[in-house]
Amino acid sequence: MSPAPTVAEPPARRIRRMPERQVVDRDALHRLLDGELVGHLAVVHHGAPIVVPMAFARVGDELLLHGSTGGGFVLRAAAERETVAFSVTALDGLIVARSLFDHSMNYRSAIAYGVLEQVADEASALDALSEKLLPGRVAELRGNTRKELAATRVLRLRLDDVVMKARAGGPSEAVDDGEDHSTWAGVVPLAPRWGAPVASALTPGQAPVPDSVVALTTRGPAT
Amino acid sequence: MSPAPTVAEPPARRIRRMPERQVVDRDALHRLLDGELVGHLAVVHHGAPIVVPMAFARVGDELLLHGSTGGGFVLRAAAERETVAFSVTALDGLIVARSLFDHSMNYRSAIAYGVLEQVADEASALDALSEKLLPGRVAELRGNTRKELAATRVLRLRLDDVVMKARAGGPSEAVDDGEDHSTWAGVVPLAPRWGAPVASALTPGQAPVPDSVVALTTRGPAT
Repeated sequence: MSPAPTVAEPPARRIRRMPERQVVDRDALHRLLDGELVGHLAVVHHGAPIVVPMAFARVGDELLLHGSTGGGFVLRAAAERETVAFSVTALDGLIVARSLFDHSMNYRSAIAYGVLEQVADEASALDALSEKLLPGRVAELRGNTRKELAATRVLRLRLDDVVMKARAGGPSEAVDDGEDHSTWAGVVPLAPRWGAPVASALTPGQAPVPDSVVALTTRGPAT
Repeated sequence: MSPAPTVAEPPARRIRRMPERQVVDRDALHRLLDGELVGHLAVVHHGAPIVVPMAFARVGDELLLHGSTGGGFVLRAAAERETVAFSVTALDGLIVARSLFDHSMNYRSAIAYGVLEQVADEASALDALSEKLLPGRVAELRGNTRKELAATRVLRLRLDDVVMKARAGGPSEAVDDGEDHSTWAGVVPLAPRWGAPVASALTPGQAPVPDSVVALTTRGPAT
């Protein structure tokens, strides 16, 4: 019922609560990171935390982050090489138990710690982010213009210091747990789903939905 | 194409990037908070940020938080009355534009700042959290035992200092934007969906799925 999967972590990040849920499988980490579109970046500003959602893509052993720079806090943290934390979480299901206490969620959660750096090749980084968001879309459109590139900031965070936890499987139960086993317990799976595409106001009625969008909406769960 | 909705915020939290996306409608904030199951809590530990996913429920003008205490960091932040940040984000859709640059996401995002406090009535708080996770489930089961309550920590965070941002609607487009308007642009909606319930190993074949679970899985999108 508990985790399956793993990621090396330094002693300072040891998980004290429920260590059995720690995951140390790099492939499981990559599946989580490649399946989620948005993570939460935490930085410290004047001694207090700020946390903002950011789109991201994994390329090899680093994350590319793109999105709101939190009023400059994120760029300042990058410039000053301050440690940041980036959290990516997938909710996979609701655990329905025979006691309220044992209700839980199936999830996969990774937290990466490190310093943010400006990427050297912003054109490639933007393509990687676009490809993550909507696979196949980059090939359908013109490249970014110099002006568009100049208006964009992509930051990278190396996956050197990562902790991953996961819960999978069914509810905690045992024949001698004292609960009424004539009743139902189980899991309700949860996954994001893409809906039917909605054309924009300026899209002509006969314009075909792009192949990338067709592929996205027919591939099943969003992650 | 941009936001619709609105939450009062102090000058220190003013959104500098894309201020037009700020939301100041308390009902929109409540809809976001009531629709999402998990948020991300950021605390500062030895000057560096830590961010962990936590289940939560809104009761009136406060949030109840429950989950991993991050190796004690969360409880220490509460005990020392340090400012924390709690972020709740909903992804509502993918914006497919005619340039890579204009691709985006529809989303709703709230960040609450404040200090964490222990709740006085943990039994009521746990019921509120259970009811949020699975509406109707509390009435189907016995109450928590003293031992179960003793093993649980629920923290509260007042919604006094909250910033909400949102993007809704279609892609950024204009007849004179220089892009090829014979092509498709639009939105692909995204929403979490509950799947078919899966019975646990100890559940008898004839045990009916609880009403709470039936209601959950037939009510449409999870949020």
